[in-house]
Amino acid sequence: MFSPLIDELMSSLRCLPGVGPKSAQRMALYLLERDREGAARLASCLDKAVEGVGHCSRCRTLTEQPVCGICNNSRRDDSLLCVVETPADVLAMESAGTFQGKYFILMGHLSPIDGIGPADIGLDVLLSRLQAGNVEELILATNPTVEGEATAHYIADQAKAQNVKVSRIAHGVPLGGELEYIDGGTLAHALSSRRQI
Amino acid sequence: MFSPLIDELMSSLRCLPGVGPKSAQRMALYLLERDREGAARLASCLDKAVEGVGHCSRCRTLTEQPVCGICNNSRRDDSLLCVVETPADVLAMESAGTFQGKYFILMGHLSPIDGIGPADIGLDVLLSRLQAGNVEELILATNPTVEGEATAHYIADQAKAQNVKVSRIAHGVPLGGELEYIDGGTLAHALSSRRQI
Repeated sequence: MFSPLIDELMSSLRCLPGVGPKSAQRMALYLLERDREGAARLASCLDKAVEGVGHCSRCRTLTEQPVCGICNNSRRDDSLLCVVETPADVLAMESAGTFQGKYFILMGHLSPIDGIGPADIGLDVLLSRLQAGNVEELILATNPTVEGEATAHYIADQAKAQNVKVSRIAHGVPLGGELEYIDGGTLAHALSSRRQI
Repeated sequence: MFSPLIDELMSSLRCLPGVGPKSAQRMALYLLERDREGAARLASCLDKAVEGVGHCSRCRTLTEQPVCGICNNSRRDDSLLCVVETPADVLAMESAGTFQGKYFILMGHLSPIDGIGPADIGLDVLLSRLQAGNVEELILATNPTVEGEATAHYIADQAKAQNVKVSRIAHGVPLGGELEYIDGGTLAHALSSRRQI
């Protein structure tokens, strides 16, 4: 319907998550009609990011520096290491504002069915970091999904073999949540993990 | 929170319509983690489109060719000209599948308050096309908004001065709509435009 260049732009916009044919059309026409400057800036940012962004050599997060800002921050506690699945999880943990240790980002989780093994999620890097002996406590904050739990168990076994203290973040009823709307699995977990007060 | 290149990518993704800070973050991390190829392709498509796409010299729609596909289509009726506001409106009209004439795209509507006058929406081009004498009927399909109606009235006056037949698409209850949920303005219009059967 549209000219080839515009059709091509629409189909390439669909690589963005959550963007279907209608949104892609709206985005392409909007950019061409009203914000060509923004489109050009977006193109150059995409190019620069694809070219420049790699992984932090210590925590594996996405960064264009050899070592990321958090790993480089000497005011953060080196003896506490929190394991999360993605860089977005780091952002979520930081928004809690109470964790002062460092992170290790798996960039995924163990998933033998997809061919993702321990080396693919950087567990060799994590192990050598534990062997170095600076880490006193390893906090497992992978997602409470089947794969996330399996990954947590696997890492816990490895860490215990290195005599590192291992903990898992608590799972239960979220603050502000109403019992009425919480699923049974979460409630069962909350009940079995109850604490004396 | 993230490294400068990633932060910059997130803020430039916000030029897309409907993309706020959370979606921009999700998009940037998704592209960097899982689809760098798609990101590179998107960057090159954006560059090519911003560089190459201009306006059709006959109907003003977005295209990288001097004259667009519809204007070049000799099987379409040159004597019927439909005036719409945007290229997306052309797509909507084409999806109806019954119009076999040609289009003229205003790329906006008259809006004196924003400094958009007749020349900005290409009415000089439209007038010279009417003066050429090929157009027998001008169908006004601007949006039924205050600005769209004003634009339609203005164009109708100009076309009548050229002795061109002018019509406006019908407004009323949409097919499949329920009277109960139609606003009063639309119903009043549907009533006053009733046809004898």
